[in-house]
Amino acid sequence: MSLPVVYYGSVVNPVSLKSFKALGACLIAVSSTGNIDWIVEDVHDSMVQETMGAHGYLDVEVVCLQDGEFLIPGFIDTHTHAPQVPNIGSGQSYELLEWLERITFPTESMFQDPDFARRTYTSVVRRIIDSGTTTCCYYGTIHLEATQVLFSNYLILHADYYLGQRAFIGKCNMDRNSPSYYIEPSVEVSMAATKALISHIKQLPSNPHAAEPLVQPILTPRFAITCTSPLLSSLGQLAASDPNLRIQTHISENLAEVTFTKSLFPECSSYAGAYDSFGLLRANTILAHAVHLSDDEITLIAKKKSGISHCPTSNFNLSSGVAPIGKYLDHGIKVGLGTDVSGGYSPSILNAIQNASIASKVIAMQTRGNPDASAEFSNKQLSVASLLYLATSGGAEVCDLENSVGSFSVGKSFDALQVNVRNNAGNPAMWGSDSGPRSLEGMLEQFLFCGDDRNISRVYVQGKLIGGTATR
Amino acid sequence: MSLPVVYYGSVVNPVSLKSFKALGACLIAVSSTGNIDWIVEDVHDSMVQETMGAHGYLDVEVVCLQDGEFLIPGFIDTHTHAPQVPNIGSGQSYELLEWLERITFPTESMFQDPDFARRTYTSVVRRIIDSGTTTCCYYGTIHLEATQVLFSNYLILHADYYLGQRAFIGKCNMDRNSPSYYIEPSVEVSMAATKALISHIKQLPSNPHAAEPLVQPILTPRFAITCTSPLLSSLGQLAASDPNLRIQTHISENLAEVTFTKSLFPECSSYAGAYDSFGLLRANTILAHAVHLSDDEITLIAKKKSGISHCPTSNFNLSSGVAPIGKYLDHGIKVGLGTDVSGGYSPSILNAIQNASIASKVIAMQTRGNPDASAEFSNKQLSVASLLYLATSGGAEVCDLENSVGSFSVGKSFDALQVNVRNNAGNPAMWGSDSGPRSLEGMLEQFLFCGDDRNISRVYVQGKLIGGTATR
Repeated sequence: MSLPVVYYGSVVNPVSLKSFKALGACLIAVSSTGNIDWIVEDVHDSMVQETMGAHGYLDVEVVCLQDGEFLIPGFIDTHTHAPQVPNIGSGQSYELLEWLERITFPTESMFQDPDFARRTYTSVVRRIIDSGTTTCCYYGTIHLEATQVLFSNYLILHADYYLGQRAFIGKCNMDRNSPSYYIEPSVEVSMAATKALISHIKQLPSNPHAAEPLVQPILTPRFAITCTSPLLSSLGQLAASDPNLRIQTHISENLAEVTFTKSLFPECSSYAGAYDSFGLLRANTILAHAVHLSDDEITLIAKKKSGISHCPTSNFNLSSGVAPIGKYLDHGIKVGLGTDVSGGYSPSILNAIQNASIASKVIAMQTRGNPDASAEFSNKQLSVASLLYLATSGGAEVCDLENSVGSFSVGKSFDALQVNVRNNAGNPAMWGSDSGPRSLEGMLEQFLFCGDDRNISRVYVQGKLIGGTATR
Repeated sequence: MSLPVVYYGSVVNPVSLKSFKALGACLIAVSSTGNIDWIVEDVHDSMVQETMGAHGYLDVEVVCLQDGEFLIPGFIDTHTHAPQVPNIGSGQSYELLEWLERITFPTESMFQDPDFARRTYTSVVRRIIDSGTTTCCYYGTIHLEATQVLFSNYLILHADYYLGQRAFIGKCNMDRNSPSYYIEPSVEVSMAATKALISHIKQLPSNPHAAEPLVQPILTPRFAITCTSPLLSSLGQLAASDPNLRIQTHISENLAEVTFTKSLFPECSSYAGAYDSFGLLRANTILAHAVHLSDDEITLIAKKKSGISHCPTSNFNLSSGVAPIGKYLDHGIKVGLGTDVSGGYSPSILNAIQNASIASKVIAMQTRGNPDASAEFSNKQLSVASLLYLATSGGAEVCDLENSVGSFSVGKSFDALQVNVRNNAGNPAMWGSDSGPRSLEGMLEQFLFCGDDRNISRVYVQGKLIGGTATR
């Protein structure tokens, strides 16, 4: 239980896919629970104490942001693979299925050694936090003990949080079409390990003030290719018994994968239809990639209210394709961003933002002269407002966390980044705001396109400072 | 005049568009001139002193690289705009012509104040050096004095080099289709300033051991739209009087620009044909962008042996298009990389490498099922070897410097980066080589895709240490 804190300064707050608020002198009060107690916009500095007093905040610490600093909601990475981080930046010459065989599965299999997992995962999570990710959806490996280790990096240690990131962590289910050295021997073994992991998590202590535990299990059938129908069926039954349990999997990333999947499920209408037939498409299902969906699949996913994790860096890097995100948004599908390390070569959502912009421009250029005038987003480039939204509020929707994170509003958790775009951040690729006057909107755009971890001085989750340059 | 130095350790040396050497225990001797005196590959550490002695190197300093460190040739940025660096990361919602009007010209016009130029350019060049660029082709503004300032950042100061980068610096020629506040009043004024700048440079002291002065002027007709025929004609005459004078300009970046250009030169066969008609296409001409060339233009450029500066980040960012670099390589055209700040949002050639990879994959994906089997590079993704080559040797060819920089060989200048891919570099996006064994080829790929300025510990030009984290 920490003391309440009031933050005073510039704040960027996503409102919708089309707008955000850029507030110059905002007060955000975070109570001792880590939740936002009240927000007052446009407060002259002579009125700060009076405003606080009117809310009963007497003798409360005020953190004043400097010029060139602002708060934004923390980034939400809706798709990444913790055990692949050691491969980051490798294997970009391959496409998906060959890349899994040559690069990914050999490394993931090393996590059968819990000591290796312990050494690796602590560093992995630290890096991802410092990159500005406050909520992360992790794929682990097939190994129960290693995945418990990934959880244990979040455990309460001496009555305090160890790493403190908000996260969903899943043990991969894989009982076919996987190498002999990296496969689960049966449906029963796969399900038993999955259930054991869920029990393990539910016994862990958690922050009583958060709307939900900071760290939660997530069902993780790797993808349809590596799961038999009986396994998918058992996972669907388990999901049905716990409506709050999130589900994550891959869909339609690569054309060869789509063809192979259809051959494995000839009785299903489509790739998405296969997941749906096992009860795995629901409002808290996170579908990674979705590069090659048919119109029927788009309609199905929209109807089921499942979310899509857009992973543009990975989709370019593995030559998977360019996901038509604008089209999905026009269909009302929830979309967040994912780094998909190590299909993607960066752990930073900033890089995903830059490549989501590029992906949208590639589609806009391809369809130039043939725009869909009635559409709001299809075939158009994503604006700064849209990019910010996808990285924060959109990700929250995809994680079924839109009532607790993704933007600043009263009652939500204070999951935030303190951004510093001044020269003293030490990023030579960023022309510091102290080298010339700049609007807050301009600083935001510059941060999204030129920023890196050095421009993130503080990372907060549930009100607690857990990373950023100020903690290093 | 410095002392000779011998570097001992891992070296990556580009050989061709299809291969590079990864050498584990290499000796590179740099004489006091800053040129490479001899290279011996595969030297066991017990043989280092003997090898040096056999070359007459007695009592010479040996710089030993650690595990996780290696040398590569310095990056060559064949296209950037020094006065646009303050805008970096801004204006990505616009396409070229609107972006020039709204973002670029207003900022460039501020350089009529030489004090503003002095403050700005020193920081600009410092950032670009620390990003690993050892040779840079700069556009200045139309202002003579400001562009002289850009040169003066390179001047000998107390008998030593001030910043020390190898560079070509041009004053833009613009006598039409420019805003009233940012245009040259006549051909005569534009030419007089151009000639004054060239004279100014030629009087400057230079390193007597370099094959050519480190800093040289370059003719810079901004692009055909902003130059009248009489101006282009005068520039062509000036070029003819000095065959060694490099020329840089833009070509076929954006479709609206191409259409406008053709309307301005109805008598010319094409955009490239317009430059050619004024004698501006020759073996030391650098053509930036080249996104939308016709087959006739490709043939013409190949025949004239002009080089192309591929600026993929900018081409994506301003929705210009995707340049078919593989096709140009198959036509034998020289190609280097350019950051094109601030059309591009990063000053780092590493970012250009990543986006050149993406651009080539976008083309490969678009032409999937229709590959040109007889072609080596057309419609195919660029390999790591190709990307490395474009960033170094290819850039050297484009700058007509292939005999002095771009790779390590005897007689060439020692323009090099000492790369550090260990965790102590402090880049959280890079999984350090000390966290797990990795081949030198693997470390190179990881550096190209995950590296940033923190992974560049030393930047050498003509044998002299001029930047990198070790100097900060």
